[in-house]
Amino acid sequence: MNKVILLNKRPVGKPTTDDFKFIEEENPIIQEGQVLLKTLYVSVDPYLRGRMSSAKSYVAPFELNKPIQSGVIAEVIVSKNLDFKVGDFVSARLDWKEVQVSDGKHLLKVDGNAAPLSAYLGILGMTGLTAYLGLTEIGKPKAGETLVVSGAAGAVGSIVGQIGKILGCRVIGLAGSDEKNRILTSKFGFDAAINYKTTTDMKTAIANAAPNGVDIYFDNVGGDISDAVLANVNQLARVPVCGAISVYNETEVPMGPRIQTTLVKSSILMQGFVVSNYAAKFPEAIKQLTTWLQEGKLTYIETIVNGFDQIPQAFIDLFEGKNEGKMIVKI
Amino acid sequence: MNKVILLNKRPVGKPTTDDFKFIEEENPIIQEGQVLLKTLYVSVDPYLRGRMSSAKSYVAPFELNKPIQSGVIAEVIVSKNLDFKVGDFVSARLDWKEVQVSDGKHLLKVDGNAAPLSAYLGILGMTGLTAYLGLTEIGKPKAGETLVVSGAAGAVGSIVGQIGKILGCRVIGLAGSDEKNRILTSKFGFDAAINYKTTTDMKTAIANAAPNGVDIYFDNVGGDISDAVLANVNQLARVPVCGAISVYNETEVPMGPRIQTTLVKSSILMQGFVVSNYAAKFPEAIKQLTTWLQEGKLTYIETIVNGFDQIPQAFIDLFEGKNEGKMIVKI
Repeated sequence: MNKVILLNKRPVGKPTTDDFKFIEEENPIIQEGQVLLKTLYVSVDPYLRGRMSSAKSYVAPFELNKPIQSGVIAEVIVSKNLDFKVGDFVSARLDWKEVQVSDGKHLLKVDGNAAPLSAYLGILGMTGLTAYLGLTEIGKPKAGETLVVSGAAGAVGSIVGQIGKILGCRVIGLAGSDEKNRILTSKFGFDAAINYKTTTDMKTAIANAAPNGVDIYFDNVGGDISDAVLANVNQLARVPVCGAISVYNETEVPMGPRIQTTLVKSSILMQGFVVSNYAAKFPEAIKQLTTWLQEGKLTYIETIVNGFDQIPQAFIDLFEGKNEGKMIVKI
Repeated sequence: MNKVILLNKRPVGKPTTDDFKFIEEENPIIQEGQVLLKTLYVSVDPYLRGRMSSAKSYVAPFELNKPIQSGVIAEVIVSKNLDFKVGDFVSARLDWKEVQVSDGKHLLKVDGNAAPLSAYLGILGMTGLTAYLGLTEIGKPKAGETLVVSGAAGAVGSIVGQIGKILGCRVIGLAGSDEKNRILTSKFGFDAAINYKTTTDMKTAIANAAPNGVDIYFDNVGGDISDAVLANVNQLARVPVCGAISVYNETEVPMGPRIQTTLVKSSILMQGFVVSNYAAKFPEAIKQLTTWLQEGKLTYIETIVNGFDQIPQAFIDLFEGKNEGKMIVKI
């Protein structure tokens, strides 16, 4: 029998294990042209919270009582498709199932010798692309500028900060524990890190860490933290808005200071994005990321949780900040 | 004696006549290289409210007990500068004085035969440039797209809408009276206009007027009206943020729904700007605006108030929406 995780109900506020349902189905049988895939690694990401609600967004909501999908690394265990052979590793957006059938379309082969397989869910996957393309296409960093990254110890944030350093910026990370901040400066080379949970006056703390003001704010979190950063931006600052994890679980529309006056006063560009906006640039971006990784200029951290049954809890733990770097479930 | 208007105190909330002080000074005497200018037309603009507060912004605040400045059309009445002769008309940012001395730098000669002099404060001045460059550089309209303009009957808004029509957009204006809305559709060619003061559900009204959603929102007002527009934006919408007149007089930081989630969900670009960001494009823009004006594709409305003493009241009236189109004081 094959284990499958369905969306049981749409989360209200913070997701709970009750929002998910485990079922077992007959193991699938494949047809000509298909492959059978065994799930090896599953990516859990904050953006999935959006797909669990019924609100209109850039991708269709998950359907109730249907499998949830996310980025998955799988191994081909049976093949009736000439493009794939048994033992191939592939990356794709796939169902949360132990094994599943694919027609081979949208499967990207990945090379387990060039990098660890899990890296293709992180630094060489959507995570790395999101960091690189959001920062370079919207943030447009110039050497000598100051970059602030929120959610800095997260999967995207830790890569954004490192790329900022490679490109010559002063980089300040905002994260929620002293341990995370220690890693930001010691492992990822950030110039400064601020613990937003223990700092009472974030606005002043950011001003102190950014004596020349903030030129780029890569925003993963939204909410109060972003208010404090926006109080410190320079003229013509750029704000790639990658996510707003601090408000994803709010049941009321979150309120905050209106920012239009700030945008006008300082001629700020603020742009929400999803990585697929820049699909045409993926090959170039992957090449650059791979080069930096091989040169040792980029590094990454994964939080790997073991076991198919742990996927929902790993997802829920994202909102508690229990991950450092990319959160991945190994099956 | 020469009348001068000083900033008496910084407005708290809505500006009042007490915030201004009239004084008289000796008529100035000019030196070699200078010209004496007689003020003919004075532009009053919402952005001046920002300069009256002490907050850091893109231009220095006005100083207390110093003359206020804005866009002015003046006539050269005495010249000891070879570049100017008596009877020349010039446009510049000048003091609120009946007459004043200039060294001739930063004076732009304008041709009273090519267009009425007051037009150089409006459609062929900063107002027209703000409309044209904000819409084209940030809004990037494409034929067939839907453009919503707030403050649509104002000086900038009425030009933005007309340019949107020239470029092939469906254009919807938001203004605060039925009379203004009638002018938007009858005189300026807007496809639809919504009275935000009498419409109870702006979100639905905009949805009805924009059946294909909103691709560009040219925002002059901020506040609740902008919330309603943002609830109707399409993927990859662009939002030039030109002003936020609805909140300029707030004494507390205005609160509203946080917009980061909307920005991410729909990959929206939101950019505050001032026209001087695009100074390099002024000549090209003026040329285009002049061509459209001469071709009869652009028209404009002015609210002209008479008398130097009326300048403060004309400025105050902007915040009551008493103007249609560009508000100008004729001396």
